[in-house]
Amino acid sequence: MAAHGAGAEGRVTITEIARRAGVSVPTVSRVVNGRSDVSPRTRARVEDLLRRHGYRKRPTASSSRAALLDLVFDDLDSPWAVEILRGAEEVAHGAGVGTVVSAIHGRSGDAREWMRNLRARASDGVILVTSALEPALHEELQILGVPLVVVDPAGSPALDVPAIGAANWSGGLAATEHLLALGHRRIGLIAGPPRLLCSRARLDGYRAALEGRGIAVDASLIVPGDFRPESGLAGCNALLDLPEPPTAVFAASDQMALGAIEALRRRGLRVPEDMSVVGFDDLPEVRWSAPPLTTVRQPLADMGKLAVRTVLRLTRDEQPDSPRVELGTDLVVRASTAVPAKRD
Amino acid sequence: MAAHGAGAEGRVTITEIARRAGVSVPTVSRVVNGRSDVSPRTRARVEDLLRRHGYRKRPTASSSRAALLDLVFDDLDSPWAVEILRGAEEVAHGAGVGTVVSAIHGRSGDAREWMRNLRARASDGVILVTSALEPALHEELQILGVPLVVVDPAGSPALDVPAIGAANWSGGLAATEHLLALGHRRIGLIAGPPRLLCSRARLDGYRAALEGRGIAVDASLIVPGDFRPESGLAGCNALLDLPEPPTAVFAASDQMALGAIEALRRRGLRVPEDMSVVGFDDLPEVRWSAPPLTTVRQPLADMGKLAVRTVLRLTRDEQPDSPRVELGTDLVVRASTAVPAKRD
Repeated sequence: MAAHGAGAEGRVTITEIARRAGVSVPTVSRVVNGRSDVSPRTRARVEDLLRRHGYRKRPTASSSRAALLDLVFDDLDSPWAVEILRGAEEVAHGAGVGTVVSAIHGRSGDAREWMRNLRARASDGVILVTSALEPALHEELQILGVPLVVVDPAGSPALDVPAIGAANWSGGLAATEHLLALGHRRIGLIAGPPRLLCSRARLDGYRAALEGRGIAVDASLIVPGDFRPESGLAGCNALLDLPEPPTAVFAASDQMALGAIEALRRRGLRVPEDMSVVGFDDLPEVRWSAPPLTTVRQPLADMGKLAVRTVLRLTRDEQPDSPRVELGTDLVVRASTAVPAKRD
Repeated sequence: MAAHGAGAEGRVTITEIARRAGVSVPTVSRVVNGRSDVSPRTRARVEDLLRRHGYRKRPTASSSRAALLDLVFDDLDSPWAVEILRGAEEVAHGAGVGTVVSAIHGRSGDAREWMRNLRARASDGVILVTSALEPALHEELQILGVPLVVVDPAGSPALDVPAIGAANWSGGLAATEHLLALGHRRIGLIAGPPRLLCSRARLDGYRAALEGRGIAVDASLIVPGDFRPESGLAGCNALLDLPEPPTAVFAASDQMALGAIEALRRRGLRVPEDMSVVGFDDLPEVRWSAPPLTTVRQPLADMGKLAVRTVLRLTRDEQPDSPRVELGTDLVVRASTAVPAKRD
């Protein structure tokens, strides 16, 4: 079990406790969680500091109460949120575990409040669908001894916890190879934010597909986006304004693909007759975009399921198979791609 | 507090307890919840029956643990789910209350399991976004004394609990008046399932708008749907196959409107040049349909917020302002509606 609270000498961080005790943070964590692999002298020194700074055990889940998991999103209006939740809830429900859903909006105040509530409700595990958790809160989770799993459709820089992602590079490769197989040679890419690993992986998949066909990558055909529809609209406009526009565009998110389709519609251009468009995600709504979108399916619900299974294993002190798992992506061909339009 | 469990004489329903005691179900509920407005003789008789049938108090929320609300959907892939959740979570989070999300898939097994978990986690209140709860479970909630609020975008037949809906009739009226104001006179309606009150209210709003202009309702222009996109596609095809098709269509859900747009696209018809389309809901994705959809906004997030505020008031034994509240709907004009095409 774990510790929190403010004491007579005021609240200090666990890092500070570790510094004063002359030990590492994981050692403090081991003491707090009652593990045996700490020397008696170190344990006594750490316990004394913890006591003086008012750290006390968090309320433990009573044996009579059903288990709870916390599923934390940055924002619930993320297009990924409901699909991940759907998978997570299904597995948790089947295990008799309640799924507490929170959004922290990338705001540290919300995140701190969530952490306070998490402690009070003695949650048994946490699944984070965000990369926005501050290091201090991440450390606090560690010290609470609450198992943590990250679901990471965006491929964020790794925290030192089990993470579940998707095969972004393979998806970028498959999307681009599909367009090549249709006969496209000038293929635009509306890329995702370069700070996210998933954007870089999708871009590299696009490059690898072109290079596999001996086609040189034309940097003017790669335009930036932020995964949101507005950036897809702007990116597609930039591609259409090139002296020699592409005949197809791969948007690194479904929402950017919808923005690209809207840019084409506003110019009176048809999809796929005048331009093919491929997305990435396979959100439920793109089955009914006009036209239905060819896209790379991320198994978001499966990612949510695996996250719950992993965190439940961690609550039983079992280790995950691998610190990072990538689930496969699939190309789903619908009506937004076709052979290239003949140009003069 | 309240009661559950199976005893020596086996589990019987609360209805059965009431029958054997010769009292009403609400009276049994008052006894279970320790209320004073029951005669001592009745109380003794009911308590005796409860004891003999093994009813015992549910675990009460310990004072140290943060409050929990249960938010129950029929299905999480309902287009409404994430918007309602977004509003509910925001208010609950602000009140330090955890939101436990469940889906019961209209299956009684799932619903019973959820009820078992609800009891075990001693949830402080329940918000149902479904009309699928069996009467037996509804009764069990009553007897547990857990406050219940229904969020009801579909306008289901009323349970005897506070319900939060939307102004469906006004929305149907506004959508149709918008098309009339553009100059449309033959306006098709793809209706929702007639068993749902919201469908009937939207239909009546459509009729009222036409009648307000002295236009007779043409029954051949009203086609059935089930709110899903496939039925919008089929309904729009049926309208287009009429000897004299309408120049505009009002689909009673956004998903049916997307299906209608797809039907038009497949025939090479343009929206809004060849046909205007109005939806109902204002789901986030229809801002980026092609074209962006004119629709009636249901304030789903606000409905979720009000539901949490209402259930929190009930947990403090305050009464809601009204047993049923309808939040206003608004017409949002985007690019899918225009003046009617000129016909020969």
